[in-house]
Amino acid sequence: MGKNLTTRAEDYSKWYNELVVKADLAENSGVRGCMVIKPYGYAIWEKMQAELDRMFKDTGHENAYFPLFIPKSYFSKEASHVDGFAKECAVVTHYRLKNDEDGSIIVDPDAKLEEELIVRPTSETIIWDTYRKWIQSYRDLPIKVNQWANVVRWEMRTRLFLRTAEFLWQEGHTAHATQEEALEEAQQMMRVYADFAENFMGMPVIRGTKTESERFAGALETYCIEALMQDGKALQAGTSHFLGQNFAKAFDVKFATKEGSQEHVWATSWGVSTRLMGALVMTHSDDNGLVLPPKLAPIQVVIVPIYRGEEQLDAISQVAKELKRELQLLGVSVKFDDRDTHKPGWKFNEYELKGVPLRIAIGPRDLEKRTVELARRDTLTKETVSKDDIVARVQDLLVEMQRALYDKAKNFRDTHITEVETYDEFKNILENKTGFVSAFWDGSKETEERIKTETKATIRCIPLNYKEEVGVCIYSGEPAKMRVLFAKAY
Amino acid sequence: MGKNLTTRAEDYSKWYNELVVKADLAENSGVRGCMVIKPYGYAIWEKMQAELDRMFKDTGHENAYFPLFIPKSYFSKEASHVDGFAKECAVVTHYRLKNDEDGSIIVDPDAKLEEELIVRPTSETIIWDTYRKWIQSYRDLPIKVNQWANVVRWEMRTRLFLRTAEFLWQEGHTAHATQEEALEEAQQMMRVYADFAENFMGMPVIRGTKTESERFAGALETYCIEALMQDGKALQAGTSHFLGQNFAKAFDVKFATKEGSQEHVWATSWGVSTRLMGALVMTHSDDNGLVLPPKLAPIQVVIVPIYRGEEQLDAISQVAKELKRELQLLGVSVKFDDRDTHKPGWKFNEYELKGVPLRIAIGPRDLEKRTVELARRDTLTKETVSKDDIVARVQDLLVEMQRALYDKAKNFRDTHITEVETYDEFKNILENKTGFVSAFWDGSKETEERIKTETKATIRCIPLNYKEEVGVCIYSGEPAKMRVLFAKAY
Ligand SMILES: [Zn+2]
Ligand SMILES: [Zn+2]
Repeated sequence: MGKNLTTRAEDYSKWYNELVVKADLAENSGVRGCMVIKPYGYAIWEKMQAELDRMFKDTGHENAYFPLFIPKSYFSKEASHVDGFAKECAVVTHYRLKNDEDGSIIVDPDAKLEEELIVRPTSETIIWDTYRKWIQSYRDLPIKVNQWANVVRWEMRTRLFLRTAEFLWQEGHTAHATQEEALEEAQQMMRVYADFAENFMGMPVIRGTKTESERFAGALETYCIEALMQDGKALQAGTSHFLGQNFAKAFDVKFATKEGSQEHVWATSWGVSTRLMGALVMTHSDDNGLVLPPKLAPIQVVIVPIYRGEEQLDAISQVAKELKRELQLLGVSVKFDDRDTHKPGWKFNEYELKGVPLRIAIGPRDLEKRTVELARRDTLTKETVSKDDIVARVQDLLVEMQRALYDKAKNFRDTHITEVETYDEFKNILENKTGFVSAFWDGSKETEERIKTETKATIRCIPLNYKEEVGVCIYSGEPAKMRVLFAKAY
Repeated sequence: MGKNLTTRAEDYSKWYNELVVKADLAENSGVRGCMVIKPYGYAIWEKMQAELDRMFKDTGHENAYFPLFIPKSYFSKEASHVDGFAKECAVVTHYRLKNDEDGSIIVDPDAKLEEELIVRPTSETIIWDTYRKWIQSYRDLPIKVNQWANVVRWEMRTRLFLRTAEFLWQEGHTAHATQEEALEEAQQMMRVYADFAENFMGMPVIRGTKTESERFAGALETYCIEALMQDGKALQAGTSHFLGQNFAKAFDVKFATKEGSQEHVWATSWGVSTRLMGALVMTHSDDNGLVLPPKLAPIQVVIVPIYRGEEQLDAISQVAKELKRELQLLGVSVKFDDRDTHKPGWKFNEYELKGVPLRIAIGPRDLEKRTVELARRDTLTKETVSKDDIVARVQDLLVEMQRALYDKAKNFRDTHITEVETYDEFKNILENKTGFVSAFWDGSKETEERIKTETKATIRCIPLNYKEEVGVCIYSGEPAKMRVLFAKAY
């Protein structure tokens, strides 16, 4: 197709890296581990943000904004949190530069901060330090706040969207009077994420909880949604944490109950990030480029004129512009690409690469016959449609394609969950079939750790809807109460 | 009114600080100079963002995202830029913390960065380093990109919204093939900002250019909009810079022209920030609290029931909910506050403090008479309106109030532009009448500097629509070609 894209079969990882750059989603910057999100990639992220933001507001959340910097001492206050987050992070130590004698710019040694500031890797500490001021009584609860922000976690090996030093995300932080309410909130947000992943991204997910060792640092329970990429590796697409009273105790956040006693507040936090962009790419795209679900495509329909000379272009433009207007009135986003600097073939390639769901080509013969040629990105099929039917057909196909992408991904996912009974089977599936492996686990950290060391597979989650079964751990042979899902993961 | 707000006459500065906190807009955080933007304040900022974003897109701009960190060496590349921006800034020197022997957390001395990273104070350098890769030919131009981001400028004396170490803003960065196109872009964005300030914030602004010494570091021309606050001090509400080829030369960004020659690219940048929140507060609010223009008010109408007992509340709720539904269908944002934890008087106070434009109170007598009581925040006037007329009346009043706020602010501004002929007059007006002072200036940096030192007044701008006049500089007595606007400023 002239896109010079490595195929998935040749090298999945290389295919991904090339595609993200060539489809104008993102690129590496001059700053180690930090990416530039390009306009086309950002337009997809904006659509994700808009849907998620609407869902958060529909479930009673408000947005706010907290500082980028966190004093070093805040991290020491919640013991398990510090181990998880205060390690690989960007540390601000000075607040001024100055000109050296030789004219170069140096850090002014006189401008050293008394206490170092950490660029937030996540905001629990600074937010709970704030909530202490906001919460006195049960009347101040619940607090249901979300923040859209950038965060930084120093990573040695980075990949565009999947693992970057700086990334964009949202982080919800809620405060509740009771354990039950906080648990319900954490579960609700997992459901919101699953809804978004499945109904907007077209990406089926498994809802579950993390094992203790995979939990968020400071959480008593981490709910997660896990997706499966086309190469059979799992990707954690969103997490929602029940934090108990850990942060309330660390930051001394108490409230007066109706009865007048003082109690610590219950907390949750939950987040999804620009990592979802990587998941979106790896769930649907093919060797010709991006495939985007219509609900998240910045351009849903592109119209390309096929013409020789001004006169033909004028006649085609008239039809194209009218069609564009009609579709836009129905809420469909349409681009009419009448640039004369590029040939139709080049444009076809370009919009395939960028995953525009539907392409309409109009040539002189179409004008005569009152037809257009309609091409569908996911199946690469073409059909000739009468001008009278095209608007309805476009609307139908956008719905149909959204559904088809989900179904295809779900079918792939469902056929890549394999139940095994022995460790040999387990290793065999991991190596040869890939995907999720459903296996009995004895519940011990040691077993989990050893399997991870030996196979690189981690327990992705304990599925929410697991059936109580009696079995035998594939590794230790000890009694086990349920199957959990293992996989190699991003 | 029970709000315990310092009055503007008593202490304008204190009034502002108290109001921002009491109206739940923002508060200081535990991090020096960094604020927390609270949900109510953030909701106003979101409305600002939505309008501005729409305006940017309507004028052909796309959003993107660039790294938070900028390598120190990038700042050295544009000589005038470094003096302006690489001074008071947050410097990241390390990328890891570790546990000290005594259990405390320290910065790991082994994790020192080879090159320090600066937390962006503005993004010209990192963006033009990126544009070099994006631009080869005239076909790649123009690039019209905007970024919504946080930036950090270390400030010794900070004030909520007006001057904070970290703030939120948007920064547009465009690249053009010709000087004319770049100039037109810079001017266009100034007009967009003025449109937003006047038609959404209800804040009249003067469009002008900055003198050389007040220009953005690296700009050849800075267009600005200047507003006047109720205390007679000016506030720069937005700037748009024509950057010439300075950044293209510094980062070696050239393009092949149609004719095949290589030329440096022409640039603009432009931004507004959460400072606008401060401007909004100081333009309209009064001793009772915030006054918000309807177009930016998160809640435009609040309905408060006045009742004794469940039965009355039920009957009133029925009317209130129907009214709420009707108004919402027309796009009006309405809150029905039926909390039984607070008295009506408390609620009246609260919504006055928060600047909700219209308040509807419904009591048992209203039910009998089929009326409601409608109170208007800006004038504090009340009227009784028949249930049949209330929807239309609300719609009218929201439009009327948006206009009235602008007119009032414009009248204040217009009566606070004073033409003077002598330096004595000048100083007298600055001290006693305040506001903008229109005076002849000889065009020299020295005069500008001396006036600033002696009076603290700066040249806010050379108005765009100035009339060519022949005059004598109020300070030097030298010939002058035009009047410029001086003021003390935020
Ligand atoms: Zn405590
Ligand atoms: Zn050059």
